[in-house]
Amino acid sequence: MKVVLAGDLDATEWQAWQAALAEALPEATWLTLERAAAAPDDVSVAVVANPPPGGLAPFRRLRLIQSLWAGVDRLLADATLPSDVPIARMVDPAMSAAMAETVLWATLALHRGFFAYQQRQRGGEWRQHRQRRADEVAVLVLGRGEMGRAVAARLRPQGYPVSAWGRDGGPLAPLLAAHEVVINLLPLTASTRSLLDARFFAAMRAGAAIVNFGRGGHVVDDDLLAALDSGHLRHAVLDVFRTEPLPPSHRFWAHPRVTMLPHAAALTDHRSAAAVVAANLRALRDGRPVAHLVDHVRGY
Amino acid sequence: MKVVLAGDLDATEWQAWQAALAEALPEATWLTLERAAAAPDDVSVAVVANPPPGGLAPFRRLRLIQSLWAGVDRLLADATLPSDVPIARMVDPAMSAAMAETVLWATLALHRGFFAYQQRQRGGEWRQHRQRRADEVAVLVLGRGEMGRAVAARLRPQGYPVSAWGRDGGPLAPLLAAHEVVINLLPLTASTRSLLDARFFAAMRAGAAIVNFGRGGHVVDDDLLAALDSGHLRHAVLDVFRTEPLPPSHRFWAHPRVTMLPHAAALTDHRSAAAVVAANLRALRDGRPVAHLVDHVRGY
Repeated sequence: MKVVLAGDLDATEWQAWQAALAEALPEATWLTLERAAAAPDDVSVAVVANPPPGGLAPFRRLRLIQSLWAGVDRLLADATLPSDVPIARMVDPAMSAAMAETVLWATLALHRGFFAYQQRQRGGEWRQHRQRRADEVAVLVLGRGEMGRAVAARLRPQGYPVSAWGRDGGPLAPLLAAHEVVINLLPLTASTRSLLDARFFAAMRAGAAIVNFGRGGHVVDDDLLAALDSGHLRHAVLDVFRTEPLPPSHRFWAHPRVTMLPHAAALTDHRSAAAVVAANLRALRDGRPVAHLVDHVRGY
Repeated sequence: MKVVLAGDLDATEWQAWQAALAEALPEATWLTLERAAAAPDDVSVAVVANPPPGGLAPFRRLRLIQSLWAGVDRLLADATLPSDVPIARMVDPAMSAAMAETVLWATLALHRGFFAYQQRQRGGEWRQHRQRRADEVAVLVLGRGEMGRAVAARLRPQGYPVSAWGRDGGPLAPLLAAHEVVINLLPLTASTRSLLDARFFAAMRAGAAIVNFGRGGHVVDDDLLAALDSGHLRHAVLDVFRTEPLPPSHRFWAHPRVTMLPHAAALTDHRSAAAVVAANLRALRDGRPVAHLVDHVRGY
C-alpha cells in the first residue's frame, strides 16, 4: 500500500508524523507529494493535513483520503478534490482528552473568576470576589460528537450542571438563556457558519461567558467584541480565528475580556493519531468498514 | 449557649456569618465582642476569624474557641490566648472542594502551558508548544490532611500521577526531584516555616513549577524569585504571602513567571461552614467529642 503524505506542516512536524506512521503501519510505503507524483497511479491512500489546493488531483486511483485533523472544513472547500473518494476525519481519543482538559481549565477559570484575578494582578489590585460552588454554574456544550461527549463527561464529575445541544437539538435560544458558560465545539458547516452572531450573544444571559474551540468561522468577530465591550458578556476564551495566525492588529489580542490560545486547545498527538490512521488503512486493505467517514451533505 | 463572634471581618461579612450561624444553630445567642463584654462570664464559646490580640482575655469561662478559618497559625501566635481552652479548626468539605478546584485549574494550566500562552497573548506572539499527556506530568502534594486528600482525589482521575508527602513522610528532596508540579498545602508551624527556601527549590527539578496555597510564611520570597529569575523554576502560582495584601512594591506582582491570587484559593463558604460550627457546638453542649481540635504541640 503506497500512501502519499500532503499538507502544510513544517519539516520537523512531518518527520515526527512519518516516524509515528511508519511505526504504526510498517507494511505501508509513505511518500511525500513530490516522490508520489512520479508514479501517481500506484498511490491508493492520501494522508493529509491541509494539503495544497489541487495537490491531490494527480492521484486518480485514491481509495481513501485520511485527514490528520478533526476539522475537515478547509479540505472540503477544495473544489479540485475528487468528490467520489471517501474522506475520513481524525477521531483520536487523546485529542478528545486534550480538548476536555482545555475546556475544564477554561470552565474552572470562568467559574472561579481566575481570569479576573489575573487581570487584577496586572493592575496591582488585591481584591477577592464571591466564591461560588460548581453546582451554581450551568454549562452548555454545543456539539454532541466525540469531543462534545468527552467534554461533558469531564465536566459533570466536577459538579457542573451540563447540557448539550446538537444541530438536531431544537431551538437554541432558550438553552443559551439558561446557561452561564457556553462552549462551542460544533463542526464548521454551511448551517453553523457565523452562528455566534449578535442574535446569539443577545440570547445569552447577562454576565455569561463564551468559549469558542470550534472554528473561527463560527464567530462574527465584531458582534462578539460589541457584546464584550457592552459588558453583556463577561469573558471569551478563543482558540480559533477567521484568519490564523490572528493578525497583530486584531482587537482580540489586547482585549481585557478575551483569553486567547493559538489554535492549541487540542493538538493531534502523533502517537495515538498514527494508531488511528493505521487502523483505518488496515480496514481499507482488508475490506472492513473505514471509521469516521465524512458525510458530504452534512459537511463533516 | 452564648457565643461571642470576634475577628477582623468587615460588617457585611459579619452579617452574612451571623445570618448563616443563627440559621444553623437557632438555640444559641450570638453576640459581638462589644455586647459580650457586658457579661463575659456568661459566654461559653468564641467563634473567631483573626480576633484582635487580647480580645478573648475577658472571657474566663470559655469552653471552646472555634475558628472560622482552616489555618490557625495567627490565632496560636496570640500569647494572651487562654492556653487551656480547646481550639477547633474549620474543616469544611466545601472549602476543601474549592481548594481542589483551584489546584486542578493551576495544574491544568501548568501541564498544558496555558500561563505561557496568556503571556504570549500579552506579547502579541502566536506560537504553539508541544502538548503533553497528563500521565507525563507528575504532581507532588505537600500535606496529607483533609485538603491534601481532597486535592489528590481530584487530580488522580485526570490522569496525573500524584504523590503525597506529610511531615512524617521521610526525606523530601528525592520526591522534589521526581515531580514536575509541587503543591504546598502544609499548615504553618515551627517546623514548616520557611520550608520553601533556596535548598528546597534547588532540590526541585529544572523546569518544575511550585504552587503555594499553604501560607506566605512557608516561602522565602527572595529564594523563590532567584529560582524563577534563573529559569530553574518555570512558574509559581501563589495565593498566600508574608504580608497580605501583598505590598504594591513586591516583585511578585509584575513577575512574568508568577500568577497571583488574593488569598482566594479556597474561601470559607458561609452556608456549609455554619453547619460545621453548629455541629461542633452541639457536640460540646451534649458532651460528645468536638471535631478537629488543634494539637498545641504539633501547632495545627
